[in-house]
Amino acid sequence: MKKELAIVLASGGMDSCVSTAIAAVEYELAFLHVNYGQLTEQRELKAFNEIADYYEVENNYRLIADISYLTKIGGSSLTDRKVEMDMDGGDDNGTQNTYVPFRNTHFLTIAVSWAEVIGAKAIVIGAVAQDQPGYPDCKPEYFNIFNKLAEAGTKVSTKVKIITPVIEFTKNEIVKKGTELNAPLNLTWSCYKDSDVACGKCNSCVLRLNAFQKAGIKDPIQYKS
Amino acid sequence: MKKELAIVLASGGMDSCVSTAIAAVEYELAFLHVNYGQLTEQRELKAFNEIADYYEVENNYRLIADISYLTKIGGSSLTDRKVEMDMDGGDDNGTQNTYVPFRNTHFLTIAVSWAEVIGAKAIVIGAVAQDQPGYPDCKPEYFNIFNKLAEAGTKVSTKVKIITPVIEFTKNEIVKKGTELNAPLNLTWSCYKDSDVACGKCNSCVLRLNAFQKAGIKDPIQYKS
Repeated sequence: MKKELAIVLASGGMDSCVSTAIAAVEYELAFLHVNYGQLTEQRELKAFNEIADYYEVENNYRLIADISYLTKIGGSSLTDRKVEMDMDGGDDNGTQNTYVPFRNTHFLTIAVSWAEVIGAKAIVIGAVAQDQPGYPDCKPEYFNIFNKLAEAGTKVSTKVKIITPVIEFTKNEIVKKGTELNAPLNLTWSCYKDSDVACGKCNSCVLRLNAFQKAGIKDPIQYKS
Repeated sequence: MKKELAIVLASGGMDSCVSTAIAAVEYELAFLHVNYGQLTEQRELKAFNEIADYYEVENNYRLIADISYLTKIGGSSLTDRKVEMDMDGGDDNGTQNTYVPFRNTHFLTIAVSWAEVIGAKAIVIGAVAQDQPGYPDCKPEYFNIFNKLAEAGTKVSTKVKIITPVIEFTKNEIVKKGTELNAPLNLTWSCYKDSDVACGKCNSCVLRLNAFQKAGIKDPIQYKS
């Protein structure tokens, strides 16, 4: 029987790569990447294409969407060069300034439009609730509501659901699961700050390094420090 | 007392113009326009700026966002030049091919991100439920769910709600209300097809012409036929 089609939101990072590995068991894959003016845009795009090659995703099932209007909006150290990046902490609710306002909604919305046209039945996003308590758009409740929105806001014939394969995982469980499924973690990019060699110091690098350490697995990528 | 700030989704058309006139009573206004590769993109942009001038919207409160990735996605006669525009009818559920998949969600999502940064308390959209039964993202239920999504998916401190001032209006009630509030209907653009002189034949022109006729008011713009 032919597999149903799923669109993976493939950032080029580890969480979406492992989500892809999980989804690949059940679905045929289409890959969506979004440029939003983040510092490491080009490096992420390289990782996206290499991971798509690994999973043999055809060219007409790869979509790169540009939403660089987010740099006009700003409000985040990822999209506004004038804002110094939080290296820890965050505001009173634990939201770091790497939070991009309502970002996941942009990604999911693009995916739903594309799903409606190519007939995909699922959208896969590598959101992780536990490691990102300060990111409001990574909570299970948020995705439940988004599913209702996609149901109400598309054609009657369109049936598409959001899938979050790693939402309840810890980062080290993600490393273990990825290793188990032969996900190409060596091709992923996590650093928020640098594009040549990972900085090893930004929040995203620190989370990744801790995850590999706890999993007892060697991180296949290089770091500056 | 200083008025609260509202972001108007200003397409350049009549419905958003009259929604603006209604919102202007209560709110200070910011204007958001979205280019999505629609046929009449440049003409709409002209209308957007002329209406923003009329309401004396400052330049830092005008945002133009480009989501031309919708032309890569296609699936609509507005964004795919190879699809002939439905001039009436539509599919079994009355959805015409001028429907752009999940379009309003893109618009609202951009507005929520901007609202979170500039502190706007409301987002105003000129959706009309009655005249667009085939457009799933124009129903009150859809906007109710979107409000829940914006609540769940933004920072705890962010409080922004979607307002749909004309959603229960008929098109002729919109014309009457706009005339009563001195909305600059002469500056609006409705035609989906042409950018020099309105075609008078596409669905959007026909709806507009009928609305003025029923309202007993002369449409101030010119038509080809």
